[in-house]
Amino acid sequence: MTESSSTTSNKSKKLHRTVFFVSDGTAITAETLGHSLLSQFPQVEFDMRILPYVDNEASAFDAVGVINQAAHDDQMRPLVFDTLVDPAVRDIINTASALNLDVFEGILSKISTELGVPPEPIVGSSHGMVDSQDYKSRIDAVHFALDNDDGARTRQYDLADIILIGVSRSGKTPTCIYMALQFGIRAANYPITEDDLDDNRLPKVLKEYRHKLFGLMIDPERLVAIRSERKAGSRYASFQQCQMELRAIQGIYISEGIPSLNISEMSIEEIATRVIQTKGLKRRIG
Amino acid sequence: MTESSSTTSNKSKKLHRTVFFVSDGTAITAETLGHSLLSQFPQVEFDMRILPYVDNEASAFDAVGVINQAAHDDQMRPLVFDTLVDPAVRDIINTASALNLDVFEGILSKISTELGVPPEPIVGSSHGMVDSQDYKSRIDAVHFALDNDDGARTRQYDLADIILIGVSRSGKTPTCIYMALQFGIRAANYPITEDDLDDNRLPKVLKEYRHKLFGLMIDPERLVAIRSERKAGSRYASFQQCQMELRAIQGIYISEGIPSLNISEMSIEEIATRVIQTKGLKRRIG
Repeated sequence: MTESSSTTSNKSKKLHRTVFFVSDGTAITAETLGHSLLSQFPQVEFDMRILPYVDNEASAFDAVGVINQAAHDDQMRPLVFDTLVDPAVRDIINTASALNLDVFEGILSKISTELGVPPEPIVGSSHGMVDSQDYKSRIDAVHFALDNDDGARTRQYDLADIILIGVSRSGKTPTCIYMALQFGIRAANYPITEDDLDDNRLPKVLKEYRHKLFGLMIDPERLVAIRSERKAGSRYASFQQCQMELRAIQGIYISEGIPSLNISEMSIEEIATRVIQTKGLKRRIG
Repeated sequence: MTESSSTTSNKSKKLHRTVFFVSDGTAITAETLGHSLLSQFPQVEFDMRILPYVDNEASAFDAVGVINQAAHDDQMRPLVFDTLVDPAVRDIINTASALNLDVFEGILSKISTELGVPPEPIVGSSHGMVDSQDYKSRIDAVHFALDNDDGARTRQYDLADIILIGVSRSGKTPTCIYMALQFGIRAANYPITEDDLDDNRLPKVLKEYRHKLFGLMIDPERLVAIRSERKAGSRYASFQQCQMELRAIQGIYISEGIPSLNISEMSIEEIATRVIQTKGLKRRIG
């Protein structure tokens, strides 16, 4: 097809490749590493597909069928990232029309040599066995985050590892939940409302927990966009209102000496990592 | 120290090694791959430490100081997993007394050769740029999961991608939140209570959404342990009560043809991956 005959020339000009993440478990490791590597090729459009629980020969043959179909459709061999442990299963996957990338290759033998012990691979265990203490810590932390979301409850603040504060829709809830789920951290959050901002001071209930506070900031333009999704055209979502609230809360952060972070350009993972680093929080799992 | 003189002989007999995950971003990629690799050496006890945002020469020198201190304390060189992109920063980290393991090494050049384009590494971007549409989808999904947790609301079920059901404390809430945060999936959950179980049928509100239902199962011993954490000694946490509820709900799953999963030995990631695979759910992000 020549460029002039294409109605989707922008798309068709970009390189395209299908990618598979194949694992005998959840495929989280293959996918996480794969995303990092592929993000370094912005010139290419990737169609990423996950094939988890490929843990026997029958499912391996099924996977080869899916991969070969993609190779046929694309007229180009796919990339296959795998973390397979069973040699019989790996051998079957390696017969597919694809570039096979073994995620563990090379690095595993270096570690084994350094430690002076052989690896003991266990199918499906790449994230380790389920530790029931870790499971309990995560669940407890998630319930803590839910119970203490949005200032709903404040009497458990003595148990909190961290209390996030910020104006409405500045990212408090998802950050708390992420820290709870991933790290077992007990994270509460409290919204600073217009009434608090009029007083130009910290709500009374937060004062005795000042050492646990961390403030989220956001650019007014971004806050307007997020609030408009919820209540388009409202005063709540207006630029003037957002800017006023953000100026007032910035003043509180400064005058009260509360560490803060502008999260406008950050993912939830980045916000959580920065908060943990700044406050020196300890994970309760892992 | 001889074994007989040690009061912690069990611990001292196990091999020990300090591990660092060093990154110019969150270090999630280095840590995820590192955990998978290290789980294959159960003979060794690892002390894992994360050094995120090492993105300039000053922080690299700081990191080297921390790594060298650990090498000195352990009298053994640490393992260092890194995903550093800036060659000047990498060169500094490589001067540490450690076994340096470059997570991207080898595999990146294979991908580049296959694609026929050079990598364009960007510091701190190993998880890709923040896509504001993805951010919004995740936040929306988290709020959906919170609003529709534990049967609190049922009028949004037409918008749900999945509705998890199960007895109290069988893992519904954390699984919904994980699917929302990681994949932007709109996941509701509804607890099946004793009243529902007495009727031996699905609650009326769920009937028209039968195609969206997925049932969680758990071993009675495990349920007793989890409920005992919450209300020790109660009827709610008794073996007899747990077993009765689980038998009744299993009957409903079978008679109503609802797919289900025993989650007793699973991590939250595994439960979510199985549910997504079984129901053929589509991610809304990534």
